[in-house]
Amino acid sequence: METDVRQYLAANHDRYLAELIEFASIPSVSTDAAYQAGMETAARWVADQLATAGVANVQILPTARHPIVYGDWLGAHGAPTILVYGHYDVQPPDPLDQWQSPPFTPVVRNGRLYGRGVSDDKGPMFIALKVAEAYLATQGALPVNVKFLFEGEEEIGSPSLEAFIDANRERLQADFALSADGAMWRIDEPSITVASRGMMGLEFSLTTAGKDLHSGRHGGAVPNALHAMAELVATLHTPAGRVAVEGFYEDVAELTPEERASLVALPFDEAGYLAQTGAERTLGEPGYTTLERLWARPTLEVNGMWGGYQGPGSKTVIPHVAHAKITCRLVANQQPATIAARVMEHLEHHTPPGARLAIHRDRHDALPYQIPGDHPGLRTARAVLAGVYGQEALQVRMGGTLPVSELFLRLLGIYTVFFSFSTADEDFHAPNEFFRIHRLHEGLAAWANYWARLASA
Amino acid sequence: METDVRQYLAANHDRYLAELIEFASIPSVSTDAAYQAGMETAARWVADQLATAGVANVQILPTARHPIVYGDWLGAHGAPTILVYGHYDVQPPDPLDQWQSPPFTPVVRNGRLYGRGVSDDKGPMFIALKVAEAYLATQGALPVNVKFLFEGEEEIGSPSLEAFIDANRERLQADFALSADGAMWRIDEPSITVASRGMMGLEFSLTTAGKDLHSGRHGGAVPNALHAMAELVATLHTPAGRVAVEGFYEDVAELTPEERASLVALPFDEAGYLAQTGAERTLGEPGYTTLERLWARPTLEVNGMWGGYQGPGSKTVIPHVAHAKITCRLVANQQPATIAARVMEHLEHHTPPGARLAIHRDRHDALPYQIPGDHPGLRTARAVLAGVYGQEALQVRMGGTLPVSELFLRLLGIYTVFFSFSTADEDFHAPNEFFRIHRLHEGLAAWANYWARLASA
Repeated sequence: METDVRQYLAANHDRYLAELIEFASIPSVSTDAAYQAGMETAARWVADQLATAGVANVQILPTARHPIVYGDWLGAHGAPTILVYGHYDVQPPDPLDQWQSPPFTPVVRNGRLYGRGVSDDKGPMFIALKVAEAYLATQGALPVNVKFLFEGEEEIGSPSLEAFIDANRERLQADFALSADGAMWRIDEPSITVASRGMMGLEFSLTTAGKDLHSGRHGGAVPNALHAMAELVATLHTPAGRVAVEGFYEDVAELTPEERASLVALPFDEAGYLAQTGAERTLGEPGYTTLERLWARPTLEVNGMWGGYQGPGSKTVIPHVAHAKITCRLVANQQPATIAARVMEHLEHHTPPGARLAIHRDRHDALPYQIPGDHPGLRTARAVLAGVYGQEALQVRMGGTLPVSELFLRLLGIYTVFFSFSTADEDFHAPNEFFRIHRLHEGLAAWANYWARLASA
Repeated sequence: METDVRQYLAANHDRYLAELIEFASIPSVSTDAAYQAGMETAARWVADQLATAGVANVQILPTARHPIVYGDWLGAHGAPTILVYGHYDVQPPDPLDQWQSPPFTPVVRNGRLYGRGVSDDKGPMFIALKVAEAYLATQGALPVNVKFLFEGEEEIGSPSLEAFIDANRERLQADFALSADGAMWRIDEPSITVASRGMMGLEFSLTTAGKDLHSGRHGGAVPNALHAMAELVATLHTPAGRVAVEGFYEDVAELTPEERASLVALPFDEAGYLAQTGAERTLGEPGYTTLERLWARPTLEVNGMWGGYQGPGSKTVIPHVAHAKITCRLVANQQPATIAARVMEHLEHHTPPGARLAIHRDRHDALPYQIPGDHPGLRTARAVLAGVYGQEALQVRMGGTLPVSELFLRLLGIYTVFFSFSTADEDFHAPNEFFRIHRLHEGLAAWANYWARLASA
């Protein structure tokens, strides 16, 4: 890496933090139409950053819902071309009352920046913007060809991305994708994610009467939608934690003895994990270690369940409708559509007498993914991280879902290297999300080095 | 009854409806502190009505939460003294989006007045106010001595009433209580309620972690509070509908063969009941008829249950806390404290591994109640209803809870005659509550006749 790029990055720490705070102040919640203005503002902010840095062809490209911000710089003749990926949308901030500071007023406390989206994914994608700026400001050029693709629908399952990539195959063609999304697993051990779980989601309701009924007048005579919901949801797992849906595990690629051995060799501090999550004990499919369950086994989680009176005091009703939201995490060889069909069959089969089931599939689908161990982009990532941290990066799998990697492979024929500087403990998708400020600076140095190293490889 | 009282009542139909609309426009929701101003306005409205009618000693008496409105007229020397009871508080109006017209903007459609509280209990208690006014305006006197007690906490279980009655035993002494609360069971069959169920309520939560966790990062490793809640709530009943709490039915006074026979003799149209409630089928404790389950068997209902994400779209979290509200309806010989202890033991015993249980008892307690069949106030009610409707009133039990009857008996030594002109199908405690306008006028005539008949008995 050029010395003056390194100096430029070091000289601008304060400005970078101020700009990231500005970016994270924009409430770009993609799932809720109430935040439409925030989504538009965030897309413009990203496009302005690219254009000001000197990236060419900057465009805000509309989709069915939230726009994609694109830009490229293709002047490195003979050098590789990479497709940089990130997302400018964030999770909803609720429950609001559990935030120590307002989610869209980012503040620094103890070397951490707190705010919705700072870790997932505004901080990490901001690194790519600033490395482009540093090279173009000091060298007038990037060491490699870069295409930037920042979407606004990652937190709702990227519903428009497949059609967009399909319609822009030529424009997006690259040697591989470099993703600013996808966290490192721990703060003290650099890691590279080589696999991720897929996803399937649906919502359903049970209705037991035409209206809520007085529990004195009708108690004992009519079914209660909440009793029916509890009974149905309780059938989804065995008490020990195995998913009880028939055929749920049928297509799962079981770990080989070698894979199991390598997972067992990874350090995992169960007591520390419990302290981090606040859980009293781990719980999940019997017969597997916690890491195996997180990385290589599928799950079914109820993400929300509700019905009846939730206000202060009591209300003596028999609720007539109850709702639940479900997502499944999938592993190699599982198909979202197949799992959806099996879960729906289970719900239909186990709906208690007197309740009517209605299912809404939200198409929050993603296939599981895995990159070959000898991929050149992966080798470069290993070399850069060894330089930054002075130790070999662990190859880890990811419990979460990054549907882009599956789309890039299927539609563009390229793999994705996950090179994010957020960390798995930074409470994304929960109150008090934060991003470590030293990771911002490590990430800037690492991305600058990655591009230089790739050009000279 | 004096002819001019009857004429006065008939001449003022339009004004009565307008005044009831004014009364029901006051949002007096006792359970929610946001409606504090509505509670105060409603209490003043009732006191003004009593004072304007000519009732003496009208006072708004403070309690720990919502005031009691008292007034009396004691000039009928030698005649019986009755304690008229009603309540000016109402249920919360949610879910608001299911109301066809705003809950606190009462409107007439097809001979019915729609609005929160019109049937429970503002319409019925308004009748007592207007009959007093009619007698005092035309006769300058009431035929019997009347003490009026209108409370503002009935919908939250009357928490201040016991202490109030205890501290005012002398002031409230009467031959019996006449309640404007407690609906007739059907519109086409006049009925008198001779027993009611008691109540016990509590709220509980399950916590499985220190915060909501990302379902990708943590799915498969930690317990989910909603799974635990479903599992726990599902243990409260057998699939067939019997309460599965150990000892729940132990103290229940079983119906005698004669009582069962009299219940079987009562007409009950199951198809009509299903059409009225919108339920597909009845469901409850096996081995009893629907009427037996409603009137003579205890129940346990979950009134609310919630946790996790309820907004639009999806949020891939593992919820770390789940809540539920429970009320039980109790029958003769069951004690609320005993049932509470048994339900709490059950919850503790069945809390799934990895979940922490917290219980909040809301003291929404009431004992079950029953009046002797030959009580003079009950005989008078039968005679009046036979005159108004041309048929004998049925003696029915009530599935609901009227804790005042138990308090009046225990603290004042008097029974309560339920003489309400609301009907059980009028959707109190649900959206689109209504009160039939012809019932208002029948009620006025019946109450006027009741007082006159009692004076001459």
